[in-house]
Amino acid sequence: MAEGFLSIDFGGTRTRVGWYSPTLELITRDESPSHTEQPIESVIDRIIQLARKVVPAYTVPDAIGICAPGPQAYTGYIRHANTLPEWDNVPLAQRISAAFGDAPTFMENDANLAALAEYQFGAAKGCDPALYLTVSTGIGGGAVIGGQLFTGWRGLAIEPGHIKFPTADGQVYSLEALASGTGIGRLAREKLAATDTPSRLRLLQTVDGKAVGESAAQGDRLALEVVSEAGRWLGLGLVAMVHLFNPQVIVIGGSVVNLGELILNPARQTLAELLIDPLFNYDKLIQVAALGDDVCLTGAAIHARNKSFAGG
Amino acid sequence: MAEGFLSIDFGGTRTRVGWYSPTLELITRDESPSHTEQPIESVIDRIIQLARKVVPAYTVPDAIGICAPGPQAYTGYIRHANTLPEWDNVPLAQRISAAFGDAPTFMENDANLAALAEYQFGAAKGCDPALYLTVSTGIGGGAVIGGQLFTGWRGLAIEPGHIKFPTADGQVYSLEALASGTGIGRLAREKLAATDTPSRLRLLQTVDGKAVGESAAQGDRLALEVVSEAGRWLGLGLVAMVHLFNPQVIVIGGSVVNLGELILNPARQTLAELLIDPLFNYDKLIQVAALGDDVCLTGAAIHARNKSFAGG
Repeated sequence: MAEGFLSIDFGGTRTRVGWYSPTLELITRDESPSHTEQPIESVIDRIIQLARKVVPAYTVPDAIGICAPGPQAYTGYIRHANTLPEWDNVPLAQRISAAFGDAPTFMENDANLAALAEYQFGAAKGCDPALYLTVSTGIGGGAVIGGQLFTGWRGLAIEPGHIKFPTADGQVYSLEALASGTGIGRLAREKLAATDTPSRLRLLQTVDGKAVGESAAQGDRLALEVVSEAGRWLGLGLVAMVHLFNPQVIVIGGSVVNLGELILNPARQTLAELLIDPLFNYDKLIQVAALGDDVCLTGAAIHARNKSFAGG
Repeated sequence: MAEGFLSIDFGGTRTRVGWYSPTLELITRDESPSHTEQPIESVIDRIIQLARKVVPAYTVPDAIGICAPGPQAYTGYIRHANTLPEWDNVPLAQRISAAFGDAPTFMENDANLAALAEYQFGAAKGCDPALYLTVSTGIGGGAVIGGQLFTGWRGLAIEPGHIKFPTADGQVYSLEALASGTGIGRLAREKLAATDTPSRLRLLQTVDGKAVGESAAQGDRLALEVVSEAGRWLGLGLVAMVHLFNPQVIVIGGSVVNLGELILNPARQTLAELLIDPLFNYDKLIQVAALGDDVCLTGAAIHARNKSFAGG
């Protein structure tokens, strides 16, 4: 009895829901603000109400896929999520399953599901192993190996943001602190304090990653230097990932990718310089993410399909 | 018709051969020097003669596994191997297969096969994902994911020796240059040149990794500092691997492991300090290799079995 799959992307800001055909065509979608500042129970109730709008009447989904924040989302529980500090072991998957006829329900985190979506329908299509990297306020990642989502022993794999590098000041920084939007903002503030280089950033009250990106796009020299430095750090992270996974593709998504070649070019150059064997590299190794805001919604639908086929 | 598996470990110094039962018990083994300084054809002929000594009369092996140096050994060709500079696209697997009734023959490199052997019979038994790291003159590695040898897109995966780190002198070094025996020798020579610290190493003509290890074991302060520094770099490499693979175990083999806790303790400490989530770590994460000199011979036998079962 093939009905379809319910997909839910529960994000810190917005919740997206979709009803997918058994062959993963999107039939209906909807979205609304998550309002996570409200009590946990009313947030969950609103997710369920939103999902009811897309599930056909009298229908039990074949499976439900949920994208949710926090480590070990695969357990179905939300805990230790930066964006949901008060959610302490909340059994979100169980609550949603119960609301939809106890349909089998599979939860995962955003970067893992984005990896799955880019592999199935996006910039990593037909590539295996496929790595996915999201670079925005933080750096997350996911991987598909042998056609399967790779999550490691305890579901924690592919945290490229936490590769650590020593820097010239004798400290050790995570890649996230060196190449994310947050890192770009910090690097810029440090450079502004340490040098006299003129920069339009000096006129701004808040120097964050967004401001640096805008200034770089307008040709501001200091901002360009910072973005280029972040790109080289990103490249150093990619060097580690390529030597370890020998991926066919690394898809890079997240807001920082909007900087385009300003950040990607130094990253690619670092890769080309530091890879031990040219066989690792080729002109299609680094790709920009192809899917848009629904990437995690799509990924959660694929995950529901894959997991229920696997006999879940 | 289950006969058994022929395994060949063709190393730069010695060649080992083994005949294994269908259930991978070692029936007979033999070994002899590889004499790779001799002409290629006579080296291959001697491998075949040695192998004939262990294969029962009138028997075609069910499959043959070969451990051989160089990248992309899985192709069955030896090329670009540091230890065999004159071997340019030599079809070793084909030559050996032809000598043993065209038995299906599967070649791989040493670190990959060692990973497989430690996973099946050694320190990584029952652990998945399992990473293997060999730290001697260089640093190599292998991984088992989902019960399968993981080799990446072009068979180049798990080259942890080529993770790159910037150092305080503004250079970028590979992990291999910082934590292998070769790296330990270099770090010591640099420290001897840059400081006045007394050390028995100053009495030696050749300060290599072995000399540093021996001096460290005898309590020489400078040697101990160097080994500890190498251990911290090794730890930084492990931090990258753990955040990316979330392995259940990382088995460390190779001669540098003979330094024991002198190098492993700083590596473990670095891990404990820098892992983002304590769930990544646990007291059995880092293990010393359990199998001895026959580890690659064993691995090649397992590989022959796995690949022929897979319908090769």
